[in-house]
Parts: sequence; C-alpha cells; structure tokens
Amino acid sequence: MKKYTSVQDVDNLEGLVQEALHLKENPYKYKKLGENKTLGLIFLNPSLRTRLSTQKAAQNLGMNVMVMNLDKEGWALETKEGAIMNGTTVEHIKDAAAAMGQYCDIIGIRSFPKLQNREEDYNEELLQQFITYSKVPIVSLESATRHPLQSLADLLTITENKPAGKKPKVVLTWAPHIKSIPQCVANSFAEWMNQADVELVITHPEGYSLADEFTAGATVTTNQDEALQDADFVYVKNWSSYEDYGKVLTDGNGWMMTNEKLQKTNNAKVMHCLPVRRNVELSDEILDGPNSLVLEQANNRTYAAQAVLKRMLETM
Amino acid sequence: MKKYTSVQDVDNLEGLVQEALHLKENPYKYKKLGENKTLGLIFLNPSLRTRLSTQKAAQNLGMNVMVMNLDKEGWALETKEGAIMNGTTVEHIKDAAAAMGQYCDIIGIRSFPKLQNREEDYNEELLQQFITYSKVPIVSLESATRHPLQSLADLLTITENKPAGKKPKVVLTWAPHIKSIPQCVANSFAEWMNQADVELVITHPEGYSLADEFTAGATVTTNQDEALQDADFVYVKNWSSYEDYGKVLTDGNGWMMTNEKLQKTNNAKVMHCLPVRRNVELSDEILDGPNSLVLEQANNRTYAAQAVLKRMLETM
Amino acid sequence: MKKYTSVQDVDNLEGLVQEALHLKENPYKYKKLGENKTLGLIFLNPSLRTRLSTQKAAQNLGMNVMVMNLDKEGWALETKEGAIMNGTTVEHIKDAAAAMGQYCDIIGIRSFPKLQNREEDYNEELLQQFITYSKVPIVSLESATRHPLQSLADLLTITENKPAGKKPKVVLTWAPHIKSIPQCVANSFAEWMNQADVELVITHPEGYSLADEFTAGATVTTNQDEALQDADFVYVKNWSSYEDYGKVLTDGNGWMMTNEKLQKTNNAKVMHCLPVRRNVELSDEILDGPNSLVLEQANNRTYAAQAVLKRMLETM
Repeated sequence: MKKYTSVQDVDNLEGLVQEALHLKENPYKYKKLGENKTLGLIFLNPSLRTRLSTQKAAQNLGMNVMVMNLDKEGWALETKEGAIMNGTTVEHIKDAAAAMGQYCDIIGIRSFPKLQNREEDYNEELLQQFITYSKVPIVSLESATRHPLQSLADLLTITENKPAGKKPKVVLTWAPHIKSIPQCVANSFAEWMNQADVELVITHPEGYSLADEFTAGATVTTNQDEALQDADFVYVKNWSSYEDYGKVLTDGNGWMMTNEKLQKTNNAKVMHCLPVRRNVELSDEILDGPNSLVLEQANNRTYAAQAVLKRMLETM
Repeated sequence: MKKYTSVQDVDNLEGLVQEALHLKENPYKYKKLGENKTLGLIFLNPSLRTRLSTQKAAQNLGMNVMVMNLDKEGWALETKEGAIMNGTTVEHIKDAAAAMGQYCDIIGIRSFPKLQNREEDYNEELLQQFITYSKVPIVSLESATRHPLQSLADLLTITENKPAGKKPKVVLTWAPHIKSIPQCVANSFAEWMNQADVELVITHPEGYSLADEFTAGATVTTNQDEALQDADFVYVKNWSSYEDYGKVLTDGNGWMMTNEKLQKTNNAKVMHCLPVRRNVELSDEILDGPNSLVLEQANNRTYAAQAVLKRMLETM
Repeated sequence: MKKYTSVQDVDNLEGLVQEALHLKENPYKYKKLGENKTLGLIFLNPSLRTRLSTQKAAQNLGMNVMVMNLDKEGWALETKEGAIMNGTTVEHIKDAAAAMGQYCDIIGIRSFPKLQNREEDYNEELLQQFITYSKVPIVSLESATRHPLQSLADLLTITENKPAGKKPKVVLTWAPHIKSIPQCVANSFAEWMNQADVELVITHPEGYSLADEFTAGATVTTNQDEALQDADFVYVKNWSSYEDYGKVLTDGNGWMMTNEKLQKTNNAKVMHCLPVRRNVELSDEILDGPNSLVLEQANNRTYAAQAVLKRMLETM
C-alpha cells in the first residue's frame, strides 16, 4: 500500500478488516516488521485519539515515531506552484515534504479543511502535494474531505457487533452542533459503508446533502424517524452544509439522538467518532448506557492504524 | 498500586523508599517489566523536571511513552456531570479519560489548581474523574493539592543525607515569591514527612497556615528563627494563603533563606523542589554552596517515578 | 567529544566526515552504543530538519530521545549571574541546565540570536552557560552565531559530489530575503570550508561582511558575477548585516540565484540549508532542476548528527 487516503486505496477491504481484527488479538506479533523504520506524524490541526492510537499502532509494530505539530510552530506552508515567496509562508510544501520524506519511512498527516472555498478543500491540494513530493507512503490522519482511519475503525466495530445472519441496517444521522464542522467523517463513513456488506441509510435536515461521490447507492432522507426504523447501528455526526459550503443552516432542534428515538430501532448500537458534544449531539443516557459503542470505536482506532501501517511496511 | 495521588496510596512507605534507592543503583534491571506497556503523560500545565524524569523512569523500565500537552492544544475539558455542551468545552472528561485509557496502560496527569475557589480545587475533581473514567492506574504529576512524586523524591534525598543515629529535624519554611503559588508542594511535603521517621516543624508568616489534613502532628510556628534551631534539613518553599485562598498577603521581607540564617541550624542541608526564584526565595550563596541538595532532589525524581511505575506494572 | 559547537571542537575533520559517510552506509551498525542513553533536545526556537534528523540519528544509535520545546512553554530562563529573580524569568539557566543534565546523557540545544545587540549574541551566553552547568556533552542545534550540524552535512554533501582530481571552488553567495536573518549558517559554512580542502569565495553586497573570525583566508568580493566564474558549488544564503547589526540594508535586487547566473559556473551544484524562500533567494528552475543538492544536504543532516553523537557516546 503506497497511500491510505480513502477506501479507494484499499484493494481488499474484507482482508484489511480481518487483518486488523487479527492484530487486535496479536498486537505484538509483528514487532520485527517495523524495526529501524520511522513514522513521522505531522499535525496541522489538533488531535487526541488519532495521535495516540496511531503512535501506539506504530510502537506495536516496533517502529520509531516522530511527531511534528506544525500548527503550533507557525510553520506556514506555501502550496502554490511558482509562488514568489515574499509573504508569510516560510517554506514551500515541495521542499518541506521532500525533506521530511528523507527522515521518515512513512508519513501520517492531518490537515483540516478551511471551510471557506469548497473547490479548494475538495481538491485536497495539501494531501496530494505531500503524496507527490515526500516520495514515501502517506497515511491520512484526516484530510479536508475524509477520515479513513476512523472509517476503518468504524467498520471493525460494526463487524464485531453486527447481528448474526442478516445484513445490518446502518443509519448515519446528522446531529446538532454549535460550530461549523467539516464533512470528513460523514463523507468517509458513507464511502466505506457503501463498500461494506451493509444497508446504508443517511438522514439529515434540508440543505445538508453530502457530495454524491460519497453517498451514491445509499438511501437518503430528511425524515429521521423513518430512517431509524429497525436500524441495527446508528452513527451520529454533525456536519456543516456542503451545498451552502461550510454554513450552519439550522440549530437542529429535535435532531439530537436520545433513548426515546432508539425505541424505533432494532435496539440499535450507537456510534460516534468523538469528541462528542454531550446533550447536544447525543444524550448522556445513550453515551453512558449499554447501547454505546463509542469506546470500542476509539479502541479500534489502534488496530485500524496498525493494519494500514503493516501493509505499508510489507511492501517496502 | 492502582493510583498514586497521595501518601495514602502507599501501603509500605519504607518499602517504596528502599525500592527507589535500589532502582537508583540498578536502573535498567527491570527493563523487561515495561515491555509493550505504554505510559501516557497528560499535561494541563507546563512541566520540565516532572516531564523529563517521569519519561526517563518509564524508559528505564522499557515502557513506551506518549506525551499530550492538552494545555497547548486548547482542548478544554468539561467536568460537570450532565452538562449541555454548547459552550467552550470540546470534550467531556468522561469521554476523554475513557478514550485515553484505551491507548495507555498507565496515565500520568498534571493539573494545577486555579486558586479561585478553594472547595473546587480541594475536591480534586479533574484528578478524581480521571481515576474513575480512565480505568487504568493513574499517577499524579502534581494535582490541585499535592505533588506526591516530588515528595517521594524529597524523602529519598533526606534518607540518603540524614545524620546517623538520630531522628532528623526537618523544617519546612515559607519563602517569598512574586506570584500566587499553589499549596501543593508544601501540603504534600508535610503529609509525607508526617509519615516518615523525622521531626517536622513548619514555619510561615501569619495567614499562611496549611490545611490541617496535611500538617496535623507537626509543630507549627510563625517564628522562623526558633523553627530553624538545630535543623538538619530546611525545605524552602513559597505558597499562597489557604485561609484567604490563593492570596499573596505579604512581600515576605526577611523570610528569604540565607547563609546567615543557616548559622542557627545544625549545618542543615537545604532543599527546594525547583524552579526557584534566586535571591527571592533562596540566596545564590546557598544554592551554589555545599549545603544545597536541590540537584540531588531533581535527580531522585527519576527513581521516585520509577519505583511507582514499577509497582503499578507489577500488579498488571 | 565533550561539546560540538563549532569546527574548533572537531580534532580530526576528515575523520569525522569519513565516519559520517560510513554511518550513511551502515546506519544501524552501532545500535548497541546508545542503549540506555538519553538525548535531550531543547528548542528555544522552531525547528523542522534539525529536530527530525537529530532524533533519527539518535534512534539509529539506539538512544532514547526526549524533546523539550521551551519556547512554547513560556519557560523564560534567567542568564544574569546574581540576578534577583522578581521579574518575568521563571528559572535561572544554572538550575535548569543542571537539572536537565541529571536526566540526559547528551543535550542538544537550539537558541537563535535576538539580533538586537551584537556583543550579547556573539558572546553565546546561553550556549556557554549550558555547557558549564549541565555537565553533560552539549550539541549545538544552531546557536546565536553558528550551525555546526548543518555545516558538517554541507561538507558531507560537497565531499560526495566534488569533481574528481581537483580542489573544488566553493562560492558562498548572499541572497535576498524579506526578513532579518541570523549570520549563523553563513558564519559556520565559512568556518568549515576554511578548514576543508576547497577554495572558498564569499560574495555579498556592500555592508554584509561577516566577522573575520569566520572568513579569514577566504576571498571576499562584492562582485557576484566574478565570484561565480568556474564555481563547482554555489551555496546560497541570506544573512542580515553584521556591521550594522541585524539590519536589512538592501532589497537585494539582482542577487537571486538563477539558471542564467549558473552559466558562468562550472555547471555548479547549488546548495541551500532550507527552508528556502523560492523565487526570492533561489529560482524554482534551480531548485527543481538537476543542479540542486538541497535534498541531499537535508538527508546528510541525519548522518552528520549521528557521527557527532557516536563520538560523544564513545567517550562516555
């Protein structure tokens, strides 16, 4: 595996899931594989779960890890080809990525969208340039449009918890939030579920449609009640508008997930990628109750990252 | 050992001291013990000695270490049960602690008091919630009211330097400072000395009494001269008022420790946890002279942390 | 080797170069040497290449690495002897360096000049005090006046790329920049080239002479065209004025290095320490073309650091 930025980079999805579940049982079995190999983790935005789980995954494989918080350093990268750099950017991504590629065998990078200009964000310029110029395998730690390590962890969690003998119904439901939030987790979850053996239903208020490239094939409705009927899994997540790009269009009154709403489901397990705004996106009663899978999702982040890193190490 | 937050968490104090001194002689003897175990260090406040010494202690035991500077990330944690999180906090401590507990075998956490509301600080809400929700052993790297790794290092230093054949007289003396400083180090030192085989005398200006729960059993006086008589160890430390909570009540003129004052003592060794305000708390002549133990205290921080981590690893 | 702050600290320069090139071929051969040894990296200023390459070098030697970003912590160090510390500095360098020396076997430190007061900067007070008080070997990660790990990497790169059978002509040319930049890299490069088997020519606009202690022995001219004649290597770098200390005296129109200028050279290889302001210091066409050595320089940073650390470890 040369890059891991989307489900499109995975050639055998079921194989990767089984690999990750195998690593969960045998986390230190491949500790020789990463010996004398270095993972560089570059953060242009804050991170808690991704940082810790990816670091742990690498250590489980015997790798060294070096962390760079470029956001904290004020190390502003230029991305425009041909720029005359007499302004505020201190280094061109060409040079920074190429230099980092000299010190790292694999690079993980996190770079959120700015939510100002949709085309710019959806071009994934920074991620693509890192791939081009670093010349080493790149793992997305969440980019402008996707969060593929989260999605793999989500799929592991669903695989471990799905009802026997049926194709599970998975509902991705929009939830309220007070801030303008990227579409990444929702895009990515939809994209992965569409490749998995599940029935995907997406529900959100008017104006919150995700881009077709991620959702095509899923059932989409603005009627949350209807969507939740007989669901086996409910994935709760806020996102800002894709159409009216980056905007918060509604306070989302009535969209918070509660135990009352769970009554309509098939005693659905409830998922969220965290961090969660309690009692805004999801009620305390769900998060602290028996239907919540949020901690299992967090735990599976380690094995998702480990499976991806293992595949990359194997092709070196 | 499931938590290390106070001397109350130590069931055999003399045993722990001996263990630490044994590790000082044999720092790498137990390097297999921490193999494939991860220590997470979470800082909500700056740290130099604690960060480096605890990291080194863990590496001596073969552990992996992951550091999170939550203060630098602006990752504000909610601590109120049932909060509707539509404000500035981005994650509830319940979820953050539980997630971190998935990635770490032991967690160390530093969280200073705000010095605004005494009851809130002395409830140690953040530390207690971390213990409850992370589900892994917790080491305090200095909390709102105590600094137990410092106190163990202090006790090691006293043990190594005490005069033969007598119970040493240990004086904790208040010293001036220009800022409002927590009571943690003083509280903790008093609490530990009261459990050790020493005679403890505490001296401070009017209005600077520490809470009884830490000092009960010690002699307390506002007469520094009297307190210093025949002292074998003088522990110098500033703290803000406990009574008039968090306030600086005096410029402390005359309370700085000097060689002249040492004349009254039994050629006492002088201790301070560092960082020290030179020529405000303690004179250069003492810090640069033969009576200072401050660097031995700093060095012993490693073995204090290592003994605590070793005990935790042994019960896993 | 007890300290590495300048070429003066190297007793056999050719030997060190050969050692580094040997390590480049055998990076993990001495992995036992650094076992149970700890490198502390202290940054008072931002760093990308130095941080990653030095960390990697230490890991190649089996060392543990602890990183401290003192600039981010607001941990202001006092350097004045005898200071009454009732101001903004929180710890005297005496105590901070001595404490860090307890936890680290080798310390690397980066501290840029303030460019306000030449004498102060050129006294290298902070670096010298670290050497005095930490009591462990000190590696400069770029100080107020020199950048010796960069210079060793530069010399490695020249050694690998020099034309056979002749003493290469190396030209250090000043280039424009929009900010006031330290003289460190230029000072250091001149100092090293003067010790190496090359012909050194330095060219810069009026007012940009470097201090004699670094350049003595080299040819210096303000005529860039003349300097570039038959050059084998062109090292491009901006620096602020040493004479009119820290000032930017000209916009440097016409001093940017371009392919047109390379016509005058012996098809010279072009070097820069990075980060580079593209199309201000150096044109895209050079950086993206076949004459650029900038990535080889970045790569050689690892082996420069590894050779220095190896020498220090061997004398412990």
